Amino acid sequence: MPSFPNILININGVLAAPEEARISVFDRGFLYGDSVYEVTQTIRGIPFRLDLHLERLRKSASKIGLSILTTDLELKKQIARTLIALDEPTVYLRLVVTRGGEEEISLDPNTPGRENIVIIAKELKPYPIEWYEKGVRVIIADTIRNPLESIDPNVKSGNYLNNVMAFGEASKIGAYDAIMLNHHGEVTEATTSNVWMIKDGTIYTPPLRSGLLEGLTRKALLQISQHAKIPVFEKTITPQELFEADEIFLSSTTKKLIPITTLNEKKIGTGLPGPLTQQLRQLYDQHCEHTLKSFEPEWREILGLLG
Amino acid sequence: MPSFPNILININGVLAAPEEARISVFDRGFLYGDSVYEVTQTIRGIPFRLDLHLERLRKSASKIGLSILTTDLELKKQIARTLIALDEPTVYLRLVVTRGGEEEISLDPNTPGRENIVIIAKELKPYPIEWYEKGVRVIIADTIRNPLESIDPNVKSGNYLNNVMAFGEASKIGAYDAIMLNHHGEVTEATTSNVWMIKDGTIYTPPLRSGLLEGLTRKALLQISQHAKIPVFEKTITPQELFEADEIFLSSTTKKLIPITTLNEKKIGTGLPGPLTQQLRQLYDQHCEHTLKSFEPEWREILGLLG
Repeated sequence: MPSFPNILININGVLAAPEEARISVFDRGFLYGDSVYEVTQTIRGIPFRLDLHLERLRKSASKIGLSILTTDLELKKQIARTLIALDEPTVYLRLVVTRGGEEEISLDPNTPGRENIVIIAKELKPYPIEWYEKGVRVIIADTIRNPLESIDPNVKSGNYLNNVMAFGEASKIGAYDAIMLNHHGEVTEATTSNVWMIKDGTIYTPPLRSGLLEGLTRKALLQISQHAKIPVFEKTITPQELFEADEIFLSSTTKKLIPITTLNEKKIGTGLPGPLTQQLRQLYDQHCEHTLKSFEPEWREILGLLG
Repeated sequence: MPSFPNILININGVLAAPEEARISVFDRGFLYGDSVYEVTQTIRGIPFRLDLHLERLRKSASKIGLSILTTDLELKKQIARTLIALDEPTVYLRLVVTRGGEEEISLDPNTPGRENIVIIAKELKPYPIEWYEKGVRVIIADTIRNPLESIDPNVKSGNYLNNVMAFGEASKIGAYDAIMLNHHGEVTEATTSNVWMIKDGTIYTPPLRSGLLEGLTRKALLQISQHAKIPVFEKTITPQELFEADEIFLSSTTKKLIPITTLNEKKIGTGLPGPLTQQLRQLYDQHCEHTLKSFEPEWREILGLLG
């Protein structure tokens, strides 16, 4: 049996190596993408913003009428068990909760089933330094972001084909990622990150009503910028505005801030990561170090409960 | 170990009982709904319209850039093996092909992975006779059908949350199913069936451009009606037109034609299944018997190949 010491999966409380980590084909997550999920990471062994991720997980679940019966404390204990067994300081953490499923194969989300909880923990290797030093090339996708009235993009669900298709457009031509527009031609987000633009010293990011996931890094950056007295606004953004921006960058939990220096075929600003993006990166790193300390006491407590 | 003699699953050529039928949590079908599927049934042991379903499966796959490497012949042989082991004359057959997946967890659909093939075969019990004799109650869903530019409804994929949510609206109030509208307020389809309306002796069904799956039963019904000299048209349909119709019905492979006698709270026509729906049901049953014979010789050949 091959061993993958740097990946471990927890399925309903049972730890498994990747090759043994399996879920029923009747699980609604598999049949319909009827699941919600969150991704965070650990920094020096401590899950980052776990409470906020669990809060958002329940918000996603509630928007698709899924009541997660497992308590936050139990979810945290299972995450802790998995992390202890994995024994790595920097870990990618994916938490998936599905609506369960039975042999009946019914679309009905209202028949009470037993939810399935899957935790995937894997060592998170550092991302390529060039992404941060030189910036990345991103495209505007032809695939249009799911509209709010069909599949709310603010629900982090297992229905991710929309983003998969957009990402595929980018990867096909060797680009880093794709920015998706909504049906009105407004910028929404990249496939797993929020989008930001800087023009004349002011920071802009699309508002939630454009149809995007409310990123936790996005939320933090809005606060950090205000605190640093850098003008920042949520406003609808057109692709044209992105092309004419001084700087553009992406934000996400695991990758933090990544400068976009080429959009489609066009150089953005000077073609190098801009000064305000770099300043925000530093401020955000400081913010992470600072808040990480605040998560530590509770996490020690959780670890203590495992006995 | 409990046994479910009337359900059998085939995963990449390995037969499994339901409780053992599991797929990797890294499968993209589970993580993103990155899969395509088809549902058909056997009649007296012969899979109905299997070639057309396999053709549509590849069409769905191609629309999401998934090249199914397994040949039709191999898929048919695996279906045959499963059916022989199950040994039931009337079987619900679900064929799922996913883009595979690895521990890497990347959105990228362009990295060549090994597809996973899942066949679920289960005894198909007769549906309640009242559905056909009295008709069913259906609602117009608030959930709007995925638009073509985001997730093409003509791709039968594992991204099915849109329909799950619509079905949930119906089941919550005890209705049979929900009809979904598109962003222009036009009727598209029910959650797993096409929709038909009859007015003054003419049959109407929404055109593909309204955003719906091109049902194989729909296709057959268009031909059958033309052949029987009953006027039939594809045209955009509003909910108002449905409410004012003489008859409405649903069509699908496994459930065939089901009369809708109540829409939201309103009685349709006389409140009983209408004469043209009943006539079409008969014509369709004859069509099924007739075409079934044409599938028999090839199926015998496939069975013979298993040796």
